[in-house]
Amino acid sequence: MKTGVIYFFFFMILFTAVNGWCATAPVSDATQECLDCHETIHPGIVESWRQSRHAKITPRVALAVQGNARKVSSQSISKELQSVAVGCAERHTLRPRKHKDTVEHGGHDIHMVVSPKDCATCHSEEAKQYSKNIMAHAYKNLADNTVYQALQRSIIGRPMLKKNKIHYKPAGADTKADACYYCHGTRLEVSGFETRDSDLGEMKFPKISGWPNQGVGRINLDGSLGACSACHSRHTFSIEMARKPYTCKECHVGPDVPAFKVYTSSKHGNIFSAMNSKWDFQAVPWTVGQDFKAPTCATCHISLLINTEGELIAKRTHQMNDRLSMRIFGLIYAHPQPKEPDTTIIRNKDGLPLPTDFGGGLAKNFLIDAGTQQKRTETMQAVCLSCHDISWVRGHWKKYEHTIRETDAAIAVATQIMVDIWKRGLAQGLDRGGSPFDEAIEKKWSNTWLFYANTVRFSSAMAGGGDFGVFADGRYQLSEEIQGLIDWLNLRTGLLPDKENRAVKK
Amino acid sequence: MKTGVIYFFFFMILFTAVNGWCATAPVSDATQECLDCHETIHPGIVESWRQSRHAKITPRVALAVQGNARKVSSQSISKELQSVAVGCAERHTLRPRKHKDTVEHGGHDIHMVVSPKDCATCHSEEAKQYSKNIMAHAYKNLADNTVYQALQRSIIGRPMLKKNKIHYKPAGADTKADACYYCHGTRLEVSGFETRDSDLGEMKFPKISGWPNQGVGRINLDGSLGACSACHSRHTFSIEMARKPYTCKECHVGPDVPAFKVYTSSKHGNIFSAMNSKWDFQAVPWTVGQDFKAPTCATCHISLLINTEGELIAKRTHQMNDRLSMRIFGLIYAHPQPKEPDTTIIRNKDGLPLPTDFGGGLAKNFLIDAGTQQKRTETMQAVCLSCHDISWVRGHWKKYEHTIRETDAAIAVATQIMVDIWKRGLAQGLDRGGSPFDEAIEKKWSNTWLFYANTVRFSSAMAGGGDFGVFADGRYQLSEEIQGLIDWLNLRTGLLPDKENRAVKK
Amino acid sequence: MKTGVIYFFFFMILFTAVNGWCATAPVSDATQECLDCHETIHPGIVESWRQSRHAKITPRVALAVQGNARKVSSQSISKELQSVAVGCAERHTLRPRKHKDTVEHGGHDIHMVVSPKDCATCHSEEAKQYSKNIMAHAYKNLADNTVYQALQRSIIGRPMLKKNKIHYKPAGADTKADACYYCHGTRLEVSGFETRDSDLGEMKFPKISGWPNQGVGRINLDGSLGACSACHSRHTFSIEMARKPYTCKECHVGPDVPAFKVYTSSKHGNIFSAMNSKWDFQAVPWTVGQDFKAPTCATCHISLLINTEGELIAKRTHQMNDRLSMRIFGLIYAHPQPKEPDTTIIRNKDGLPLPTDFGGGLAKNFLIDAGTQQKRTETMQAVCLSCHDISWVRGHWKKYEHTIRETDAAIAVATQIMVDIWKRGLAQGLDRGGSPFDEAIEKKWSNTWLFYANTVRFSSAMAGGGDFGVFADGRYQLSEEIQGLIDWLNLRTGLLPDKENRAVKK
Repeated sequence: MKTGVIYFFFFMILFTAVNGWCATAPVSDATQECLDCHETIHPGIVESWRQSRHAKITPRVALAVQGNARKVSSQSISKELQSVAVGCAERHTLRPRKHKDTVEHGGHDIHMVVSPKDCATCHSEEAKQYSKNIMAHAYKNLADNTVYQALQRSIIGRPMLKKNKIHYKPAGADTKADACYYCHGTRLEVSGFETRDSDLGEMKFPKISGWPNQGVGRINLDGSLGACSACHSRHTFSIEMARKPYTCKECHVGPDVPAFKVYTSSKHGNIFSAMNSKWDFQAVPWTVGQDFKAPTCATCHISLLINTEGELIAKRTHQMNDRLSMRIFGLIYAHPQPKEPDTTIIRNKDGLPLPTDFGGGLAKNFLIDAGTQQKRTETMQAVCLSCHDISWVRGHWKKYEHTIRETDAAIAVATQIMVDIWKRGLAQGLDRGGSPFDEAIEKKWSNTWLFYANTVRFSSAMAGGGDFGVFADGRYQLSEEIQGLIDWLNLRTGLLPDKENRAVKK
Repeated sequence: MKTGVIYFFFFMILFTAVNGWCATAPVSDATQECLDCHETIHPGIVESWRQSRHAKITPRVALAVQGNARKVSSQSISKELQSVAVGCAERHTLRPRKHKDTVEHGGHDIHMVVSPKDCATCHSEEAKQYSKNIMAHAYKNLADNTVYQALQRSIIGRPMLKKNKIHYKPAGADTKADACYYCHGTRLEVSGFETRDSDLGEMKFPKISGWPNQGVGRINLDGSLGACSACHSRHTFSIEMARKPYTCKECHVGPDVPAFKVYTSSKHGNIFSAMNSKWDFQAVPWTVGQDFKAPTCATCHISLLINTEGELIAKRTHQMNDRLSMRIFGLIYAHPQPKEPDTTIIRNKDGLPLPTDFGGGLAKNFLIDAGTQQKRTETMQAVCLSCHDISWVRGHWKKYEHTIRETDAAIAVATQIMVDIWKRGLAQGLDRGGSPFDEAIEKKWSNTWLFYANTVRFSSAMAGGGDFGVFADGRYQLSEEIQGLIDWLNLRTGLLPDKENRAVKK
Repeated sequence: MKTGVIYFFFFMILFTAVNGWCATAPVSDATQECLDCHETIHPGIVESWRQSRHAKITPRVALAVQGNARKVSSQSISKELQSVAVGCAERHTLRPRKHKDTVEHGGHDIHMVVSPKDCATCHSEEAKQYSKNIMAHAYKNLADNTVYQALQRSIIGRPMLKKNKIHYKPAGADTKADACYYCHGTRLEVSGFETRDSDLGEMKFPKISGWPNQGVGRINLDGSLGACSACHSRHTFSIEMARKPYTCKECHVGPDVPAFKVYTSSKHGNIFSAMNSKWDFQAVPWTVGQDFKAPTCATCHISLLINTEGELIAKRTHQMNDRLSMRIFGLIYAHPQPKEPDTTIIRNKDGLPLPTDFGGGLAKNFLIDAGTQQKRTETMQAVCLSCHDISWVRGHWKKYEHTIRETDAAIAVATQIMVDIWKRGLAQGLDRGGSPFDEAIEKKWSNTWLFYANTVRFSSAMAGGGDFGVFADGRYQLSEEIQGLIDWLNLRTGLLPDKENRAVKK
């Protein structure tokens, strides 16, 4: 072995090291001023940023990348920004007139809340796609839907006992921000400014109601919707983190949308959990088989994927339902994805803002058609087909679509009993001007579709394993609640199952 | 330091690198033909295989290994197979006459579904042991047991409301495959063949009902039972993955068999979660203390273990109950392990295919005797004793055996109330020709033993921590359900607890 | 590049390797005797120890470390101990007269159960702080509190059916050790000694009731309280393990104290899960931003933290409530932390050993005052402020304190209904000499505060995400149980909600 070989290996090791740990891009003067104070005051976020790609690569270098490896989708970025790292000032001083929280701070007009429109400076395509994402509209879709508001009130309102019934005082801003809108996003508003003492003398700060929040549909102080930091945690803004399933878990963990739990109980989740320390979560584009061996949430729903020949398998999208034909959670029945991300415009045949009626009929005008569904299914299946042959994929889909029909059929029975209970006046539903969610028996009904049918469908969709979908918030519990609905009704009508009036031995 | 030392280290690093990442065994012509197309079409599985041991080591090299490090248990392997990597063709063209899904494909007779009998070519001992595993019989054990079928129907059947009662239409093949039989395994059947267009012209493919499935008791197209890929995920077939607990989680995650949840809440699971990135999951044999510091599922139930002196601690087994004296889940009461893996032959004193009767009496003739139990306990304890002294192990076992008795006593009370409810005609059980599982109060009863007594026993068996076994689907919930059973009965008989007839203040 | 540079890098690599894997401190003769046998008999624990800091560094070296990097808090350690590794003998032969389980073993007086007083030889400050920790008193705080004992009996007692009610036979020692006291700690007692045959002839061993146990409040055989091994798992006693959240999960996993589940669903938990393989969990002191990017349990509650300038952010504490102003779980209402770790001395206005009465009034004399609360809040906020600015932290706290008030208000409604039920004689509470925990409707009440209000508060405190706190054992379920309480009462009083007596259509 020649010394040259030693040198070669050493250079390789050094090169890797330098690339991975040490490279930094030049920092603007403004950003350097920020760092001078904040690296001691807020070491957590400064160090996070230092290890981010934003600190290592200038937009000019990023723009020079061609093809699928390019991460910056904007065609033009100002000369000034191109030549420096994407630092504090490059984000927190952008478009100062647009942000209501802009204040003078150390000689700069800075704003606290960075919005998708700021990020769009470099990532315009992603911002545009995201704006068409239902998630971007998550605030309004919840806050401006009368049925959801009844559900919300019965969960997070303050309970009060009046005339043998629980009534709910609507939740205030703090409860909302701590509960539903933690994920959906809050409406940020500047309620004033305050002056605080600091080591550098008096400083002015905005007072922002709804803050802190990183919900997916946050209404920002420049009017934009969403928070990129919901998935790309500040201040690393790491593609690695967004590609791992833990990010999605923040909002998709409960029985209402058990994606994470189902995933980690699936074959895919098993392979991820056991082997992911050997995978590359930073590669762009993401090569199936080479960079990873099993999909994460991002693989199927978002990422730009290629095969080992460099051929495109799936385009990147930040409109999450681009690869989804059905919506399988959150509503009474499964249904085709809504056409528009603003779902408050939907009306079912009863005039309610729901994609189906209580009998399961679709509000077709507001939902994507069969052709669009087929196209989206094929986009998703292209991902599956990079590891599975067509018989496997078809077999999987056949089971999945069957399970959607079966769970809908079960929910129809649950709803039939619930409607009967309402009709008999044993509970007060919409027909009597009440809320369909504020009595014990109504919770039993909402459990069936909000939790259990839902979990069964997720287990099926994600090949999530029989045990989870059967026994962990799944088919068993769905069956239990339906049996409980009829048991509750029978007791109050004096009937026994299967008999009109069976004698009871005391 | 001499240059020689540098060289030495370089060679070591290179050697490790070559061994770990680069080594490949020669590939047969047939496999090369497969790879030529599939590495682009299915990069996920091809790359998985490339990194597998099967791609790196020929059977000849594997056969040359002596002693406990040997992974191939077959005594003789054909010369032809010995000299090439275990590639696509070496699996998918084996025993073509035996597989009903064999079709001509690119000039070869290939079958899609590889079975344990194929794997037995090299791993004969493991295949033989696995055939004696209850898991291999998981299809029949569920499908041919009348009591389990009643339970299955009440969970995955389609509910229908008739005469104030929920009736169930038996589940079809797709529901079954998506639910119970996802884990238990489906019965695969070739329903026909179809011709599909491809880049290489028309190709013939089998249509297989029950596919895809990787359940532990899958009935294969060559008549064999099980799927090695249930635990050794295709196409890596990695011992590392099978040794990590995520594999077991796929089917052991719900409250019916909460092994994974209990494990990760235990001291052992804590040590695994915190430290396993530093352990060696590929070493064979597996050296306690050196390769790992705390057991995973595989350690206690399956793996070949030695101490740091190379002395045997436990033999490898693929008959999972080889180290188990009791079966603590899935049935009304805990009981000694069944003698035979086919549990449909069991009859209790009432003639039901259950290992105990409703009072807890054992169907002794079908269960292992005390001697066998003792032997299996000692096999398991040998594993424990490699980290714990005998007082620790005995103390643990004393608590565990006590907990089995206590949970059985609690279930006896729950069952006594349930039987009373059936006798009074308040629900229709087996005595009235009904199902013991299809009414709300019966679910309350099945919750007690199918979920909670069960979880308590798992927590105890695996030293799974008090909090999990007490509050997370454990003792608290067991107590709650038993209280609920008597509450339900009292309401319907007009009785108040502790009084024959206490006045109610309205 | 000069050869010198190559040498330099090689030495660095070697130095790291040697430090990390190979360094060992001299072993005492006594410890060597232990190792001679036990390295074959118990390879798991011997190898764990070999990789521990205890095996690599002598106390003398540890004492020489100055400033925040010092891990040994004792001022003086005996000369004899200073010069050798902290091996088997250095622990198991300390203070032999003090340990009731001391026996002669291979020529040494050894004891099996090492106690915090043994560890205090080097770690005196930590032992002292821990003794003021509520956790150190976890045995007595449960065993000597009459209300908790009623709760305990209704969960882990053996149920018996008498006169239409479930009565409970108090749990025996084995059940207690397997359940509540697994975490709380058992009372160890030497019940005798026994002689066992071994390869080295007959040997004497203590018989210890309550063993094995590693609960946080274990009553040791030298009278001390606690087990350092509860968090610093034997025999690695690793700071890395204690700093990872899996350790806390062992006891904080169920819905009664869902810290781990909430954490892993939070932004902090997401960052930890995705990125922790790149962090340094062994560095002392622990530098925010540099060693880690998001907090674990230990970061906020225990660890010595500095910023990148070396300035102190938080002092180390082993009194877990040093940074906590409120206790948010385990009792009916949230309340200021108790003044004393022995909580059995608390009396509320009704004379019960509870920090609040059933109406929510505080037992103020026994709880820390507002000033102390404020001080503790500031200690905790100092940690938050190393990544978040003051508006963020204040906004977070505002929501959290609001959520405490709201959950307490909800629990007040639940308790009001429960008290009404007791008053009407529909269940037997404390007022009729009964247990408030042993009937079905009482479980519905205890669910509200023991599980759900609790989970909502944890989710809020740990910024644990809306979805977890709303739908996974949170606000939805809290609402459901309160609705269930009034539903149960209405049925028994013949009332329908909102109407005095509404007609039912049969």
